[in-house]
Amino acid sequence: MKKAIIIGATGFGGCGLLEILARHSKITVNQLIAKNETGFKIGEMYPHLADFYDLEVKKFEEIDFSDIDIAFFSTPDRAGMKLIHRFIEKDIPVIDYSGDFRFNTQSDYAEYAENKSIETTHDSEEYLQNSVYGLCEKYGSDIKRAKIIGNPGCFAISLILGLLPAEKMDLNGNYTIICDSKSGVSGAGKNPGKANFYPQRYENINTYREGSHQHLIEVEQNLKKFGINQKLFFIPQVIPMTRGILSNIYIQTEKKYTTHELVILFQEYYKDSPFVKIVTKSPDLSFVRGTNYCVIRPLVDSRSGSILITSVIDNLMKGQSGNAVQCANLRLGLDETEGLMITPSYP
Amino acid sequence: MKKAIIIGATGFGGCGLLEILARHSKITVNQLIAKNETGFKIGEMYPHLADFYDLEVKKFEEIDFSDIDIAFFSTPDRAGMKLIHRFIEKDIPVIDYSGDFRFNTQSDYAEYAENKSIETTHDSEEYLQNSVYGLCEKYGSDIKRAKIIGNPGCFAISLILGLLPAEKMDLNGNYTIICDSKSGVSGAGKNPGKANFYPQRYENINTYREGSHQHLIEVEQNLKKFGINQKLFFIPQVIPMTRGILSNIYIQTEKKYTTHELVILFQEYYKDSPFVKIVTKSPDLSFVRGTNYCVIRPLVDSRSGSILITSVIDNLMKGQSGNAVQCANLRLGLDETEGLMITPSYP
Amino acid sequence: MKKAIIIGATGFGGCGLLEILARHSKITVNQLIAKNETGFKIGEMYPHLADFYDLEVKKFEEIDFSDIDIAFFSTPDRAGMKLIHRFIEKDIPVIDYSGDFRFNTQSDYAEYAENKSIETTHDSEEYLQNSVYGLCEKYGSDIKRAKIIGNPGCFAISLILGLLPAEKMDLNGNYTIICDSKSGVSGAGKNPGKANFYPQRYENINTYREGSHQHLIEVEQNLKKFGINQKLFFIPQVIPMTRGILSNIYIQTEKKYTTHELVILFQEYYKDSPFVKIVTKSPDLSFVRGTNYCVIRPLVDSRSGSILITSVIDNLMKGQSGNAVQCANLRLGLDETEGLMITPSYP
Amino acid sequence: MKKAIIIGATGFGGCGLLEILARHSKITVNQLIAKNETGFKIGEMYPHLADFYDLEVKKFEEIDFSDIDIAFFSTPDRAGMKLIHRFIEKDIPVIDYSGDFRFNTQSDYAEYAENKSIETTHDSEEYLQNSVYGLCEKYGSDIKRAKIIGNPGCFAISLILGLLPAEKMDLNGNYTIICDSKSGVSGAGKNPGKANFYPQRYENINTYREGSHQHLIEVEQNLKKFGINQKLFFIPQVIPMTRGILSNIYIQTEKKYTTHELVILFQEYYKDSPFVKIVTKSPDLSFVRGTNYCVIRPLVDSRSGSILITSVIDNLMKGQSGNAVQCANLRLGLDETEGLMITPSYP
Repeated sequence: MKKAIIIGATGFGGCGLLEILARHSKITVNQLIAKNETGFKIGEMYPHLADFYDLEVKKFEEIDFSDIDIAFFSTPDRAGMKLIHRFIEKDIPVIDYSGDFRFNTQSDYAEYAENKSIETTHDSEEYLQNSVYGLCEKYGSDIKRAKIIGNPGCFAISLILGLLPAEKMDLNGNYTIICDSKSGVSGAGKNPGKANFYPQRYENINTYREGSHQHLIEVEQNLKKFGINQKLFFIPQVIPMTRGILSNIYIQTEKKYTTHELVILFQEYYKDSPFVKIVTKSPDLSFVRGTNYCVIRPLVDSRSGSILITSVIDNLMKGQSGNAVQCANLRLGLDETEGLMITPSYP
Repeated sequence: MKKAIIIGATGFGGCGLLEILARHSKITVNQLIAKNETGFKIGEMYPHLADFYDLEVKKFEEIDFSDIDIAFFSTPDRAGMKLIHRFIEKDIPVIDYSGDFRFNTQSDYAEYAENKSIETTHDSEEYLQNSVYGLCEKYGSDIKRAKIIGNPGCFAISLILGLLPAEKMDLNGNYTIICDSKSGVSGAGKNPGKANFYPQRYENINTYREGSHQHLIEVEQNLKKFGINQKLFFIPQVIPMTRGILSNIYIQTEKKYTTHELVILFQEYYKDSPFVKIVTKSPDLSFVRGTNYCVIRPLVDSRSGSILITSVIDNLMKGQSGNAVQCANLRLGLDETEGLMITPSYP
Repeated sequence: MKKAIIIGATGFGGCGLLEILARHSKITVNQLIAKNETGFKIGEMYPHLADFYDLEVKKFEEIDFSDIDIAFFSTPDRAGMKLIHRFIEKDIPVIDYSGDFRFNTQSDYAEYAENKSIETTHDSEEYLQNSVYGLCEKYGSDIKRAKIIGNPGCFAISLILGLLPAEKMDLNGNYTIICDSKSGVSGAGKNPGKANFYPQRYENINTYREGSHQHLIEVEQNLKKFGINQKLFFIPQVIPMTRGILSNIYIQTEKKYTTHELVILFQEYYKDSPFVKIVTKSPDLSFVRGTNYCVIRPLVDSRSGSILITSVIDNLMKGQSGNAVQCANLRLGLDETEGLMITPSYP
Repeated sequence: MKKAIIIGATGFGGCGLLEILARHSKITVNQLIAKNETGFKIGEMYPHLADFYDLEVKKFEEIDFSDIDIAFFSTPDRAGMKLIHRFIEKDIPVIDYSGDFRFNTQSDYAEYAENKSIETTHDSEEYLQNSVYGLCEKYGSDIKRAKIIGNPGCFAISLILGLLPAEKMDLNGNYTIICDSKSGVSGAGKNPGKANFYPQRYENINTYREGSHQHLIEVEQNLKKFGINQKLFFIPQVIPMTRGILSNIYIQTEKKYTTHELVILFQEYYKDSPFVKIVTKSPDLSFVRGTNYCVIRPLVDSRSGSILITSVIDNLMKGQSGNAVQCANLRLGLDETEGLMITPSYP
């Protein structure tokens, strides 16, 4: 049984990990760490976990480094970059949830940080070069050997998985790719604020950070590696729900495709990816709720020739903790799907 | 006091009219007609209206034509086209909610009907030529004299109002205009079905009739009249709420604009339209809930030069009964805003 | 036109007042005051009010006392008690939203304050004796002459109106009255916190302050005045919605009643109350949404003889700003229903 | 591996079974049967199950009786009673979801049926006497040997589990027990209708079948077996959510208890029940979402001495398919918790 530590155990990210790992047959959690909320059993904060974990949430200073196979940093931006070296020095692989290790250069990080209105310097610049972006569908072999894995942003992975097969398409022409994404409020984390304020969220929808969301850089950087150089115009939106992201990606091309051609292309592209499913009917969030799946549907508008790629994920699973466990499975030499083969829950 | 009859009084459209006209100082409702649900006081079906209306819902055959200043047909497709001549012959102006009189030619109607999978013939073809599309912002003077007014579709009016100012822009280039719209479930009317099934709608979103929704023709037809000939790719979506539509309209152009230029252009364009408001911050549905407003925000993405026009309405007001009353006000020589100057309700 | 000032203009209470008074033909708002959020036009905070009010939110020190007919203190507990004397001295009647003036003695206030975990002293004790509880259905003549009106709590008014007719019943027997109330989250005000945190509220319900909610004292005090001395066990609950309260009141009695007897008794009791409606079918919140109505249904369980009284209100209207305007109408010698005769909105 | 057949596979009950059994290590589903919706792979109807089951939904006539260890009838009332003998004759144990086998006498069934407005005769009267009510917490040893297990109603089990420990209390006095229950809409099944119509359900709550819900008889019958003879007044309500039931049970007694005494009593009572948890803080539905748990909190109101027992379940799990699997585990000699030890999912 592999031993995992969770740093930042009290947020939604930590909670999601605890739920998944409670049913994982090869990884068990033996230490919970938080910054401010410490000194109590996790079941006192999350009563639904009380029967499954008897662990106390401790301070970073109390970590026992002697019995850790993998460390999850489900921490906000700039928390991991200050602490992660303690694990690297001891050869403990780390999976970080924030933007800290999603980039390989200081300048890329700075662009991300600027969009998020946070400090643009990086406290562990030396690790950037070798950190691996946690996109299991493309970087699986690197993840297996990585010291640091930067777990993707939730919007980012829904867009990247939807767009990657375009590397096999002819995208010539001066077109911008439009990414119109809708998310539940849990993406804003567990602190009450304007984003998750019930009276503002019910019966409502709005766009925000239009064209300047921090995940934009993350997407463009990764697409470039596969020759997709189009500019993206990314418009995140919040809708009245807690979990889930549906992204509509609009691509215009000189060369025209049929829906059938794209379906074949996408199926072929992801034929070895256990969590990516290509469908031909309109997918909805019930296809992925509570699971690590990303369901994608490519469609061509016969009137205009425009392409619509719809991508749906559970933002707290494939968009966060599910993907982190997938990365951990790869890194620890386990079956990629271990602990993650659960059906969605309907209704 | 003008007297109004409502045909199709028991649906959401009739209900919305009754709510508005209860606070209208110049129009009163004196007859309620329905097809199947008849023979009871409206307050038995809608208890919230019991104190405001003592009217019985009657059959079409029971109409008293002697005391009607205006007729609202809040009926489904193909209901009005069979009955409307009875009013026209008596010189009673009619406002029809369906697609029956939104087009001026049989062939345009047929295209609409085909998209909606209904019969494509028209039973009152002779009236098509002179029917007026109920777009008060452009056809106000025609509406004032119209015999038949075709009240716009909910998605259609949100898109048309967002796109009309583009007639003053230079749209050269081979680009498709992307219309990504999200609606509450009330657009599907008052019959329980898949579209408004709570267990399917909560925590969910999905696209439907991608590129082939019946409102598409309605939008393109009206834009063409103003020289906007681009193809539209329209993708309706349903999200977990009852009322409201937010449309994101994406325009790519050779000529580049700034957000400021577009704001000025839009404000100028709608300076005489009491229900269209141009804003510079991200609008949400609380700006329009329960009202006849359409709030529009034009934005240019500085990275790609793409344009995003966000348009929000209450689909049962500006998208249905509110706009119908606005048309009625114009037609009856009343102040265009009579009965409609209510604040949105927040939260 | 009567002039109103709103102290605490930026909360939900102030917002509700502004919405109602925008359609009020006899009262206009000419001053907006807040404690911290000042120095901007109200439309910047509440865009949906921008077209209706051009008023700036000012500090308390900036009040112009020369042109005020009535003052609304839509302020939290203990705010009004420090400031209200400034208005009383100038003979300006005040309607206070908090618990500050809902009691006539210091000791009653202290019990309320203790339940709410706030300080138990009262800074304007001298005004308590003459303050009038804003229960228009019973204290209308006092309200017409009151210097200070204490606007009832939202749960309190739903329970009091449901229970008052019991003064005409024989309640003998050692039974506790059970009050099982469910509220939307807007009762918790406009500050984000645990109570209105979307991820906690969706798909959820919970009880809180069981038997010790501060409104309990308010209800028992007022019932005692009418000879209803039973103990109440009041259990508030929050359910996934923004507006509305449904209270189920369970009464056991030695003497047995029929549903019909109670319906007659209740109808007779409220025959002169324009906003209280007695119904015989199960009422729901769509009967009252957005309005000042309280709809009540008395029912006797034929198997057990137990009585269920169901009472529904819109907590932000009859439970807050609607009732405040009703009080203001009475106090200013206007028609009690002025500005409040709007239909509920459905769906 | 035990083989299970599901009759009525296409409803929420069948769907729930398929989700649970997909992660069950000892039971596998090998046949799916439905009445009308047949002739397709289950994944076509429930895309979220497509990767987990390749089974076709067949007609009753197509059943292969040769390879079945247990039969789940997730069918509506009166469906199982006509068909179940085919399994009994072959010694295949049956778990029926409806009210058909929740009673041991024809007259008890008739009372249930009358409340539900269905036919009151019973087509398999001969089996009633030996059918076992699927209350694992009390009838575990009978369930282990049962030919037919009547799976409890969702409201019923939430009330029975909350009330059973009262057999150890002194309930003297002429008091009615009040059961105020709130449910999500999924209890109404998968057919669109008034109960699950989104525009009616959002921002709403209402009572229904007050004092005459069919589960009432089921609860009283089972309580009587343990000496609890009080009358119940049961008031079901629907609130804006899909899953979950919270029941508030109010008990008045001559003898007074403290909260602490009840907590001890309840904990002792359920010390061997793996799915019943006694808590001392207000429980909410996130404690049980997606799981087979029933969480119960007893509380005494110190002012009135009244007792509140709050009981929460997921109506589709402990209230339906979870409990059915628990029964199946017992019947098949497996660990009672097999396939059911999953954490709730938060948020």
